[in-house]
Amino acid sequence: MLPVQLIRKKRDGGALDDAEIRAFITGITDGSIPDYQAAAMLMAIFFQGLSAGELAAWTDAMTHSGDVIDLSQIARAKIDKHSTGGVGDKISIPLAPAVAACGVAVPMVSGRGLGHTGGTLDKLASIPGFRIDLSLAQFAAQVDQIGACLIGQTERIAPADKRLYALRDVTATIESLPMIASSIMSKKLAEGIDGLVLDCKVGRGAFMKTLERARELCGLIRGIGQRAGKRVTCVLTEMTQPIGRTIGNALEIRESIEVLRGGGPRDTRELTHVLGGEMLVLGGVARDPAEGAARIERALGDGSALEVFRKLVAAQGGDPRVCDSPGSVLPRPAHRDELALPPGRVAAIDGEALGIAALLLGAGRRTTDDRIDPAAGLVVDAYQGELIEPGAPPQIILCHSLAPGDHRLAEARRMIEAAFAIQPADRPFTEPPASRILEVIR
Amino acid sequence: MLPVQLIRKKRDGGALDDAEIRAFITGITDGSIPDYQAAAMLMAIFFQGLSAGELAAWTDAMTHSGDVIDLSQIARAKIDKHSTGGVGDKISIPLAPAVAACGVAVPMVSGRGLGHTGGTLDKLASIPGFRIDLSLAQFAAQVDQIGACLIGQTERIAPADKRLYALRDVTATIESLPMIASSIMSKKLAEGIDGLVLDCKVGRGAFMKTLERARELCGLIRGIGQRAGKRVTCVLTEMTQPIGRTIGNALEIRESIEVLRGGGPRDTRELTHVLGGEMLVLGGVARDPAEGAARIERALGDGSALEVFRKLVAAQGGDPRVCDSPGSVLPRPAHRDELALPPGRVAAIDGEALGIAALLLGAGRRTTDDRIDPAAGLVVDAYQGELIEPGAPPQIILCHSLAPGDHRLAEARRMIEAAFAIQPADRPFTEPPASRILEVIR
Repeated sequence: MLPVQLIRKKRDGGALDDAEIRAFITGITDGSIPDYQAAAMLMAIFFQGLSAGELAAWTDAMTHSGDVIDLSQIARAKIDKHSTGGVGDKISIPLAPAVAACGVAVPMVSGRGLGHTGGTLDKLASIPGFRIDLSLAQFAAQVDQIGACLIGQTERIAPADKRLYALRDVTATIESLPMIASSIMSKKLAEGIDGLVLDCKVGRGAFMKTLERARELCGLIRGIGQRAGKRVTCVLTEMTQPIGRTIGNALEIRESIEVLRGGGPRDTRELTHVLGGEMLVLGGVARDPAEGAARIERALGDGSALEVFRKLVAAQGGDPRVCDSPGSVLPRPAHRDELALPPGRVAAIDGEALGIAALLLGAGRRTTDDRIDPAAGLVVDAYQGELIEPGAPPQIILCHSLAPGDHRLAEARRMIEAAFAIQPADRPFTEPPASRILEVIR
Repeated sequence: MLPVQLIRKKRDGGALDDAEIRAFITGITDGSIPDYQAAAMLMAIFFQGLSAGELAAWTDAMTHSGDVIDLSQIARAKIDKHSTGGVGDKISIPLAPAVAACGVAVPMVSGRGLGHTGGTLDKLASIPGFRIDLSLAQFAAQVDQIGACLIGQTERIAPADKRLYALRDVTATIESLPMIASSIMSKKLAEGIDGLVLDCKVGRGAFMKTLERARELCGLIRGIGQRAGKRVTCVLTEMTQPIGRTIGNALEIRESIEVLRGGGPRDTRELTHVLGGEMLVLGGVARDPAEGAARIERALGDGSALEVFRKLVAAQGGDPRVCDSPGSVLPRPAHRDELALPPGRVAAIDGEALGIAALLLGAGRRTTDDRIDPAAGLVVDAYQGELIEPGAPPQIILCHSLAPGDHRLAEARRMIEAAFAIQPADRPFTEPPASRILEVIR
């Protein structure tokens, strides 16, 4: 069948068979199918969806459009975690070493950050010398030796997804759930994993705004995993206020090291324990999630997770002294400005607005070409529900290297002020849930 | 708004406002909107449709993407006819001179044929010397002087439609009714007409397979006309068996001249009378369609229509002797092969199959680059309902210049044989309707 016939079939609600899907994805990969036909197919899929069988075949074809890493020589279970993206989401950094310290290998290939959500790779790259561009052979060797490796997506991992993702961005087809699911899973299945824990963010600051839509996405992702013979656990987590106390690359490494030393903000710790616990269950080294979470907490408390992180940093060319004195190793901003919130009760925090404020300070990218200031970002010392007394010390620190009159600075301040909904201290207030975990789908 | 935002708005069922539509069509015309965004928008429109207001704005923007012919200096009414395309549809050729002979000007800009339906321009181009590439100034002058002119669509008539049409063809969005309606009307409105008669073909050999869908298209086209201040009459006509007795360019010119001499096959004559009658009503020179049709019949019978055609051919560089001795002026095929149908009753004729057979003989194009043999085609001397006696003379003549062993010849024969459903002479048979006119929407 010609590409136009495949588009017509999908447009009319028909099901594409495996060979048709393979042919289409091959055409996407080798460029023989032009962008306009790919765009028409994406929009047809937006409206008609893909059946479970089509979705599995589509994902498999994208996975095999490039290199598939072979980690079969590693005896331990290989389990990865993927997050759909949140503000202040640095969980991978304490998580991967902690899980590795518990005996499960973590082969993690990540993307770079774009827009208001940061990327794990950008955070790691703020450690002087840290390399994210290892070869796949080096990657496999490090996973075997240290138990964890975090690298960037190469040109050769799921190139069909790379092309389709860029096209979805400019053709208003980003929001197609089967396309989101296949994009995530094609890359993860190329890592040679045995199982995956998906941290699906839900809420105003997340891509999935409602629990219902998040459940739908998780259903698709679990379906792809099942047909590929991989176990997938989905953890739906709240994403309205930012995770932890820091937003920005070097700042988040600092917070991650606090967690690796058994400390850190409550929510950052909770997510690390829960996601890690599920990974240990999938990896077969914990009988249940509670036991898994407890083991992760122990690995963070006894220094074994930090030890893995130290080795990982050193193996990837970074300065391992970051583990002991992050403040002197990590880049520092030229300025630390303070911002005090008005007195009252913090009723709500808009994480997305804070993410954009951090981006304005230099912590993120608006477009893929933007350069990042690794030292820039926000320290946010105010939680939802907190009571701010008159005259309290400033809650927000703006880290940046912008000139004093830079308009982005004023804009960031405005965004931060607007991000906090403060209500009178005496107005009744319902405490938000203590946990960010909304639901686990195993 | 960025193009991607306009695509998203339409994708989500929103209505684009006039400025948004103008901006999008401007981007299509100047190339600043890439093909992939145009393709995504076309597919979104396929699913979400366009409101009457959006469709009028879309069409108007396409009309004004290029030159709009100004015929306001011509005092007579300017009425055109457009056919959605049928096999053996040569009606424009006797029709335009007949209508002009009755005092209504016919400015006709046509497309070339593609696939199994032929194009008026290709038929006219089979007259030696006939030019279809007049300038718009020459076109306007000829409409004024002779009352009719038939030219090809220039690069400057609705260039946005040209680009979108090419894209629809390869992105499975051809079948979108608003896109069909706007494509037809953007070109017709650029002609400077006062009104239009649409011959909407319905049936197996037509683009519109059902009466319902044809009515829907006619509704859209009449809505566009109304909002542009132009009266549009839609005539729905049966298109399963071919029109008249000939399929092929020079062959159809011969049949057209028969009609211009007051003869010709019944259905070719009927279509010319009825469509012409409606044009005269729109042009204000006949009180009702019956009077209009009678006047057309008279113009064909008294030689006045042929006289206009003679002037038209001469003015456009063609050899006017074609009117008197078409057989010696028109190109002749190297071979005329015969084909006899088996005895029995002709229960049905598949016009589309005959159109493809003619195409195989060289009468049409598979792709826009194909060259046409003007002399090639079919003479079909068998009507639906006809009883073929054993030993009757062959009913079909295949005109071509193919080598005797050419595989297209055998394929064309097979297609022709399969195109005729012959049933036993004694089996009950319901006579088909004597008229091809299904419905008129005024």
